[in-house]
Amino acid sequence: MFSIKFRKSKLYYLDQTKLPQKEVWKQCRNISEGFSAIKELKVRGAPLIGVFAAYCVAVYAKNLNLAKDKFIKEIAKSIEELKACRPTAVNLAWALTELKDTLLKNSNKNTAAIRKALLDEAQKIYRQDIELCNRMAEFGIKLIKSGDTILTHCNAGFLATAGEGTALSLIYKANAVYKNIKVYADETRPLLQGARLTAWELSKRKINCTLICDNMAAYLMQKGKIDKILVGADRIAASGDTANKIGTYSVAVAANYHKVPFYVVAPFSTFDLSIPTGSRIPIEERDPQEVRTVLGKIGIAPENIKVFNPAFDVTPAKLITAIVSDRGVIYPPYNKNIKKLLGGI
Amino acid sequence: MFSIKFRKSKLYYLDQTKLPQKEVWKQCRNISEGFSAIKELKVRGAPLIGVFAAYCVAVYAKNLNLAKDKFIKEIAKSIEELKACRPTAVNLAWALTELKDTLLKNSNKNTAAIRKALLDEAQKIYRQDIELCNRMAEFGIKLIKSGDTILTHCNAGFLATAGEGTALSLIYKANAVYKNIKVYADETRPLLQGARLTAWELSKRKINCTLICDNMAAYLMQKGKIDKILVGADRIAASGDTANKIGTYSVAVAANYHKVPFYVVAPFSTFDLSIPTGSRIPIEERDPQEVRTVLGKIGIAPENIKVFNPAFDVTPAKLITAIVSDRGVIYPPYNKNIKKLLGGI
Repeated sequence: MFSIKFRKSKLYYLDQTKLPQKEVWKQCRNISEGFSAIKELKVRGAPLIGVFAAYCVAVYAKNLNLAKDKFIKEIAKSIEELKACRPTAVNLAWALTELKDTLLKNSNKNTAAIRKALLDEAQKIYRQDIELCNRMAEFGIKLIKSGDTILTHCNAGFLATAGEGTALSLIYKANAVYKNIKVYADETRPLLQGARLTAWELSKRKINCTLICDNMAAYLMQKGKIDKILVGADRIAASGDTANKIGTYSVAVAANYHKVPFYVVAPFSTFDLSIPTGSRIPIEERDPQEVRTVLGKIGIAPENIKVFNPAFDVTPAKLITAIVSDRGVIYPPYNKNIKKLLGGI
Repeated sequence: MFSIKFRKSKLYYLDQTKLPQKEVWKQCRNISEGFSAIKELKVRGAPLIGVFAAYCVAVYAKNLNLAKDKFIKEIAKSIEELKACRPTAVNLAWALTELKDTLLKNSNKNTAAIRKALLDEAQKIYRQDIELCNRMAEFGIKLIKSGDTILTHCNAGFLATAGEGTALSLIYKANAVYKNIKVYADETRPLLQGARLTAWELSKRKINCTLICDNMAAYLMQKGKIDKILVGADRIAASGDTANKIGTYSVAVAANYHKVPFYVVAPFSTFDLSIPTGSRIPIEERDPQEVRTVLGKIGIAPENIKVFNPAFDVTPAKLITAIVSDRGVIYPPYNKNIKKLLGGI
């Protein structure tokens, strides 16, 4: 099961806005198509948009026929354009910076060689992401045991990465290794990534999954029904403060109140050590229509009602029990331990 | 602005499932129509379903032509049927018990006199509910001040009562008395009473209102944007534990974490002193399709995904700053102070 495909020099993506009703694959041929696919959440998930953007640049370079100087300038411009597409998830900026470095390092070569270097780099990022997912699952598996019921928010599975997922990679592995693993999936308003994507993914993989509305999670914790919480991340500051899909903070506060362990699962590319704390993470605000309607299909509120629609929130490090990375499980104090494990990135 | 009307011996209700797009009034002619209207949430809100059910019995009695013994038996049966319609809100049982007492007290009279007594009682309950709303607003107004930003969950306004509302009656009064009152309304999945009803009500009344998804409330509190929380209630136990729309507990936990005052607003008829604590309040679970779809109109999840869909949750007394009743503001210790103020009910 994949979320993007690169076949015979062509880049395809599963249009996630059509799930769970239809599995529609589309081709991405240039930067503007890639920009729209990411902006409109057809391709989403912090690690995945990094991988996809990298391929997008490589594919664009492949079809771009310009003299070398103009070629380099145009690719560099395209990379910056894509970076601005979504501000919160740092993986996008990280992957595109890798591509830009590749571009600059190879700028003394001819355009054919630059094209090849960009594609090689994109494929490296792709393969690496698959491997990162596996490693997070290997390190994180020790946090789970047979009989666990796990709550997750938004989608952090194979639809959010090139591999098996961040938070969900642990669930897939736990389901293979242990017995009686159960999952509750928050539907995750406004764009319903939990209902549309996580419930679909987990069903495909025959995981025992129950869908709830976001506002039911605290009630389940009150009833003692949740053993652990696993979520992905869009950006983790040096302090451990973690930006993730809006609603994650609400879950973390409830987990703290009910003493339910709250785990964040993310690869090194989601860490941003240039940012000391979460207050510096830019939070994307999106179209009010996402809240006034459901998926743009039906209106559910007065037409001109004011709306506040942040796409992410920041969970402070003190509410996070541990962060599962591809280099190991990180415990508090995060300031020290993140640097120790990931200081070289 | 009304939610039900009794005109020329006929009972009408505003079909709340059609809001905010259309204002559709329907007539209720008998018990089975009343039962459906309540069950399908065309008429909802704890105080309102009590008032509406009382009128429903009176209207049914008016049109029922049976010999006296059969008449009494049939009305008594209808009252029990209606009581079973929704289990959590106690106002329904309370109002119908008043009607049953009236029926029994007048059973020595002829059917015409019994009919009149039932209608008088329904009208008394109706007028009383309007008055209760006004009193709650009068007592509660002292908890609010100019510049306050108030978060509310679900709908506790004129659509939930015969009068101005429970929680929203305070907001309407505060808006008239103070300056710069702002409201955030939780959309309240799955049935979106916040988006469809509260946003509509507050807009009609020109209140400065911003709509959010339920999972954004904690984030707003983190940002220091919420001064107070006001919610209604469906049943309050002797301990102060309060059942209200699902998601209320999540808001209360977040309020506690952020030290934001959390107020419940409810009339005496919402208190159930026969129940010592919240664990004894029956929680209605509703159709999974409410979660798998939005308002039955569009599917948002895999068709057969398991769902957990409790319609209410219970907020423990320790998370409630005060309860605003029609007899005064009640502070902890609730066990003692509720009994003191409402022991006679």
